[in-house]
Amino acid sequence: MQLVSDQILNAQKGSSWIRRMFEAGIEMKKQFGAENVYDFSLGSPDLNPPATVIDTLRGLADQVDVPAGLGYMPNAGYPAAREALAKWTEAEQGAPMTASNIIITVGAAGGLNCIFRAILMPGEEVICPSPYFVEYGSYVGNYGGVLKPVKSAPGTFKLNIEGIAEAINEKTRALLINSPNNPAGVVYTADEIDALAAILRKASQKYGRPILLIADEPYRFLAYDGCSVPSVLPRYEYSVVCSSFSKNLGLAGERIGYIAVNPAMGTEDAAQLVSGLILTNRILGYVNSPCIGQKLIIGGLADIQLALKLQSDQLAIYAERRRIMADILTEAGIEFQMPAGTFYFFPKAPHGMDDVTFVQKLADERVLAVPGSGFGYAGYFRIAICVDKAVIERSRASFIAAAKKV
Amino acid sequence: MQLVSDQILNAQKGSSWIRRMFEAGIEMKKQFGAENVYDFSLGSPDLNPPATVIDTLRGLADQVDVPAGLGYMPNAGYPAAREALAKWTEAEQGAPMTASNIIITVGAAGGLNCIFRAILMPGEEVICPSPYFVEYGSYVGNYGGVLKPVKSAPGTFKLNIEGIAEAINEKTRALLINSPNNPAGVVYTADEIDALAAILRKASQKYGRPILLIADEPYRFLAYDGCSVPSVLPRYEYSVVCSSFSKNLGLAGERIGYIAVNPAMGTEDAAQLVSGLILTNRILGYVNSPCIGQKLIIGGLADIQLALKLQSDQLAIYAERRRIMADILTEAGIEFQMPAGTFYFFPKAPHGMDDVTFVQKLADERVLAVPGSGFGYAGYFRIAICVDKAVIERSRASFIAAAKKV
Repeated sequence: MQLVSDQILNAQKGSSWIRRMFEAGIEMKKQFGAENVYDFSLGSPDLNPPATVIDTLRGLADQVDVPAGLGYMPNAGYPAAREALAKWTEAEQGAPMTASNIIITVGAAGGLNCIFRAILMPGEEVICPSPYFVEYGSYVGNYGGVLKPVKSAPGTFKLNIEGIAEAINEKTRALLINSPNNPAGVVYTADEIDALAAILRKASQKYGRPILLIADEPYRFLAYDGCSVPSVLPRYEYSVVCSSFSKNLGLAGERIGYIAVNPAMGTEDAAQLVSGLILTNRILGYVNSPCIGQKLIIGGLADIQLALKLQSDQLAIYAERRRIMADILTEAGIEFQMPAGTFYFFPKAPHGMDDVTFVQKLADERVLAVPGSGFGYAGYFRIAICVDKAVIERSRASFIAAAKKV
Repeated sequence: MQLVSDQILNAQKGSSWIRRMFEAGIEMKKQFGAENVYDFSLGSPDLNPPATVIDTLRGLADQVDVPAGLGYMPNAGYPAAREALAKWTEAEQGAPMTASNIIITVGAAGGLNCIFRAILMPGEEVICPSPYFVEYGSYVGNYGGVLKPVKSAPGTFKLNIEGIAEAINEKTRALLINSPNNPAGVVYTADEIDALAAILRKASQKYGRPILLIADEPYRFLAYDGCSVPSVLPRYEYSVVCSSFSKNLGLAGERIGYIAVNPAMGTEDAAQLVSGLILTNRILGYVNSPCIGQKLIIGGLADIQLALKLQSDQLAIYAERRRIMADILTEAGIEFQMPAGTFYFFPKAPHGMDDVTFVQKLADERVLAVPGSGFGYAGYFRIAICVDKAVIERSRASFIAAAKKV
C-alpha cells in the first residue's frame, strides 16, 4: 500500500549518492576488512572535538541540575549564545553583527530550511551555482520552491556571472552560494561577489523586492595557503550567512548552526527577516537549537582567539592530507584543480569517462568516492579527505590502477 | 521592503497566543516582581532533570573525546538509542515494537514535521479533534497540507466520532490525536479509539489507501488517579506514536523525540513508511536528533523500571498541584472538568464571557493564562500548572477576584 506521497516515494528511489556509497562502503569493509577499504565518500570530520568543547561538557552536569535546567529557552537561542555568536561572526567575517540578528538553528541545514520556509511561496525560485551540495534541491523543494542551478566553468568552477544574471526573473527570491564550495573546493573571489551584488541590486530594483544572497559557509575556516574567503556581509546589504560548528568544532552530531542576518539591510528589514526566521524555526518543529550544544558553543567560543587558533590547527592537518592526495592524483594522471578550501577534491573522470562508471572502477579497487552527478555536475567526482593521512597514502596504488583502466 | 513570504508575514501578525502571554508575563514580572505574578501560560516542566540523566551527562566528556566523538550517526539515530526506545515503547504502550521501526527525531514537533512532509502533497488533509495544540496547523501547513479540526463535545471534550467520520474524504491522509490532550486534559477511552479505528479502516478501504492514525503522546505519563491511556498500536494497524522526552525526562531544550511505526501494518508497509521518515528527517535539515541528547536517553532508559518510577514520582508532584488548582477554581466558581491527564486545566470562561476578555481580566489580577481561541476552542482558557504549588496557592485570591468581575 502507498503510505508516503508520490514525491517522497520517487525521492526514496533516487536516494542520495553520498549515502549510497556510504552503505556500499559498510558492505565492502565487511568483505575486505576496514583497513583495506579507502573510504573518501563522507564529508564527516574525523578529529576529536577540541579541548574547550570537551572541558565545557565536563562541567555541564552540575550546571544543569536545576529546575528546568535542560528546558526550553527563547526560540532564537540562549541570549549568551547569540551574544557569543555575534562576536564570533564579527571576528570571522570582519563585518559588524549584533546578537539580535543571530538565530541559532539545528545545524546549517536547519538554518537553510528556516530561510526557505520564511521566504518562499510555492513556485518561487532560488538560483544556485553548480556543482552544489545535493540536499539544496530538497531544502528548497520542501516548501514548493524550485532550485535553478547555473553551471560554473568546467575545471576552474568560476561563477558564470552572466548565466546567473539571465536566470533571474520575477519569481527569484534568493541566490544561494557555498564558498569554500562543496564539492568543488573553489573559493569565490571578492570580484565575483561584487559582480553578484551588482546583478542582485539591479534585479531587486527591477522587480521591486530585494533578492536575498545566502552564503552557506560551514567550510569558511578551511581555506589553504593563506587564502581568505571574502565575506558577503560588507558586499551586499540583503545577505545572510548560514553556518554551523559541525566541521570546525567537531559538533556535527549535536546539530548546532546559526543564521546571521546582515544589519546593513536596515533595522526594519532585518527585524522583519529575523522575526520570520524565529517563527519558521519554531513552526518547523526545531523549536530551538539543542540546549547542550548551545552551552558547548558558549564555552567553545568564550575565547575567540583560541577558537580561531583551534581552527588553524585543524587546517594544518587537512593541508597535509591535501598535499598527499594531490600527489597521488598527479601520479595517477587524474586531472584536478587544487582545492583552495574544504576537505574535498573534485577531479575530472579520466579518459572522458562517465563519472558513475569511473567511480565504479574506483570501487573495484576499494576506493569509495561520489559521482559528480550527485552534485549536479557530471564528468567529475568527489573525494573527501576526512581520513587519516596513512589511509590516503595507502590508496595510491588503487587510484593509479583505476585510472589505467579505460 | 518585503523579505518574507505573504504567508509568513500574516503568521507573524497572528503570532502565537502562548508566546504572547509569555512576553506579557516578562513585562509584568518586571513591574510587579516575579513573586507577585502567577504565570500559568507555558507548558514547560519546572522540575530538575532526573538523576539518571544528570549522571549520564557527567560521564559523557571522556566518552566523546575520541575521533568524531560528537560526529554524525545514521539519520535514524544511534542503533543503541533506537534499541532502548523500542524496549521503552513496548513497556509503555504494551505493544510489540522493534528498533528498526523507531526514528529518533528533534522532539515530537520535529517528528510530526517528518511525518507530514513524508505523507502529504499540497491540498491533502489531516483531521484533528479540537481543542488542539495550536502549532499543529503550522506543521501541516508547512507542506501545503490542510488541518481540518472537528470540535469535541463542550465541557467533556469527548470525541465527535460522527463528525470525524463525516470530515473524511479522498484527500484525507491522516487523523492526528493527542491524548492526554493539551489543552483539555482529557484522555480518550479505548472505546473511542476503537470507534476511530473502525471509521479509518472503512474509509481506507473506500479510498484505496490507508489513512494514518498519528498519536502525539508527550503527556502519556501524566495520567492521574490510576487512569491508563489506551494505546493506538494494538487498536489500529496503520498507526504511529510520536512522542518526546521533553516532559517526562525534563529534556525539552535538548530536543529529543521519536516516531514509533506500528509493526502491525506489515513489514513491507512499515519499511516504506520508516524509509520515508528517515528521508524527511534528513531533507528537513534535522539530519539526526542531537547526539548528546540521544546518549542521555540511552542512559536515562537503561533501567526501564527506574525510568517508569521517575515518571510516577513526577506525577505525584503534579497531582498535588492539580488538587490545589481544582480547589481554587471551585472556590472561584469557575466551571471546569477535572483533567484526567497533562499539567493543564481548560476551564470555561465564567458568565458566558469571551475567553480573550476573561484572560485579560485574569491578567489584571496578575494571573497569566492562554485563551482557548489559541487552541481552536473559544469560550475556554488554559492554565498550565508547571509552577510550584506555593505559587498556585498564592494565586487563589486573584482567581476569585477575576471571576467576580462581570
